Amino acid sequence: MTTPTAIAFVGLGAMGHAMASTLLRHQIRVTGYDIRPEARAKFAHAGGNTAETVIDTAKAGNVLILMPVNADQADSILFAAGALAASPPDTTVIIMSTCAPGRIAEIAKKVEATGRNFIDAPVSGGVVGAEAGSLSIMAAGKRDVYDQHHKVLAAMGSGLVYIGPNPGQGAAMKIVNQLLCGIHIAAAAEGLAFAERQGIDPNLALDILSGSAASSWMLKNRGPRMVEKDPSVTSAVDIFVKDLSLVLDAGRSTKMGLPLAALAHQAFLAASGMGLGAADDSQVIATYQALAKVTDKPT
Amino acid sequence: MTTPTAIAFVGLGAMGHAMASTLLRHQIRVTGYDIRPEARAKFAHAGGNTAETVIDTAKAGNVLILMPVNADQADSILFAAGALAASPPDTTVIIMSTCAPGRIAEIAKKVEATGRNFIDAPVSGGVVGAEAGSLSIMAAGKRDVYDQHHKVLAAMGSGLVYIGPNPGQGAAMKIVNQLLCGIHIAAAAEGLAFAERQGIDPNLALDILSGSAASSWMLKNRGPRMVEKDPSVTSAVDIFVKDLSLVLDAGRSTKMGLPLAALAHQAFLAASGMGLGAADDSQVIATYQALAKVTDKPT
Repeated sequence: MTTPTAIAFVGLGAMGHAMASTLLRHQIRVTGYDIRPEARAKFAHAGGNTAETVIDTAKAGNVLILMPVNADQADSILFAAGALAASPPDTTVIIMSTCAPGRIAEIAKKVEATGRNFIDAPVSGGVVGAEAGSLSIMAAGKRDVYDQHHKVLAAMGSGLVYIGPNPGQGAAMKIVNQLLCGIHIAAAAEGLAFAERQGIDPNLALDILSGSAASSWMLKNRGPRMVEKDPSVTSAVDIFVKDLSLVLDAGRSTKMGLPLAALAHQAFLAASGMGLGAADDSQVIATYQALAKVTDKPT
Repeated sequence: MTTPTAIAFVGLGAMGHAMASTLLRHQIRVTGYDIRPEARAKFAHAGGNTAETVIDTAKAGNVLILMPVNADQADSILFAAGALAASPPDTTVIIMSTCAPGRIAEIAKKVEATGRNFIDAPVSGGVVGAEAGSLSIMAAGKRDVYDQHHKVLAAMGSGLVYIGPNPGQGAAMKIVNQLLCGIHIAAAAEGLAFAERQGIDPNLALDILSGSAASSWMLKNRGPRMVEKDPSVTSAVDIFVKDLSLVLDAGRSTKMGLPLAALAHQAFLAASGMGLGAADDSQVIATYQALAKVTDKPT
């Protein structure tokens, strides 16, 4: 195996573009592809190479990084669209999206059956972390393969952790991360709506809770947008509808009941059902306001 | 009204003793009482005055601080045991335990009907915070009465916040605090047990989660005791069985559904039912280990 120097990067959405651009800043050669021509143009403008097809992209590097929306897209890029067969025989495939652990294990097996390598490396930290190269990356795969790609992964994420030798373990860790994130957002909403229901100014409550043992990263981050009138959208309600679905699917696959995660999912689902799917995920508080007819946001 | 200089302090348990001793260190005169003679002896040893009866205690100061186990005890100290009637007519009663907001409002009304004043001032921060004088104190009552007692309250809690003019609002804020604390402990347990169920070392998972957006004060504080074999007891499972009961009672009183709090309560109840009521509250993880037959603590 050669030391990886040329990257093929498929999936230039907000996260993918920021991650691929961070690689460029580390003097790593990247050929990028997205099905949307405007995303390719944006990446070219940022100094990246681009290719016109997924096949040509796969040929351009022996590290094939995928940042699609989900496992289904990853699967079709690799197999139906022919990216894997087109890639050099010593290629390492790295999937970095949030996917079901079982699906990742399955894709890894098919990739490795062709003699190529696979690393499962989902990320946490959002576009801000991707732009800064400070993502948390939860990586799993054969140790020597991981070590060989350490430089590329570390360029994208200062919070790089090796989880274990089996592809899917990174995805599983990401799933646990999303379980807590989702529950904590819903819990913050339950607490702030209940404060208001009891006649306490939610801004005062947020201030007190943020400095006490009741605090969480999500309370401090999403809480302010729960008490604002027109919060900006940082991550949408429907992202947690999807991510908590993946959490519950993983619970189903491993036969583990996850009662709090299941309940938090219902809260996000209800908010989405109220028409708030594209609103900031802090707006899951609308579910609790509906339960309590709390109207802190007079219309 | 005179400036308060002499405190009568009833309830010298672990928290009460630490709070009353902190007042002594601020050169505030305190006469302490507890129904247990050994608790009185311990306070005398710490330099406090003690009295032999609750009546004599109540006579010894015009600020009567109560730190009983619950609202029932507060009620019987004040009324059945005669502490209120024995206290000077210009006395201010301050209840600092975690109680149902409705009970506090009711007791305040009866106290104020005698011409005396009332402050509702529950605390958060545990024995460590009480000893350091760094408690969070969520105070409610007439603003001028609160201002008059600012010095005494601030001596016990550097995190002193005025919530509002109505006794019960402090208790309500404490209830919201406990709602989040309880949910966050149960969520940490659900997450760590699920990590293990998926084959991830729970110590590694805790390390990653503590540094990510999935973090909470409780995850960082209770998480290490969830993955230890024989954790020390800092606060018992049954304390959260009680506190989440108060949360749900407050939800019932104000007619607000609190689904995550109700579910977290069930997790603590189940752990208590397994015989873990006196164990450290981190051991709510046993509920999830039972659900998943995870055995991270081989016997």
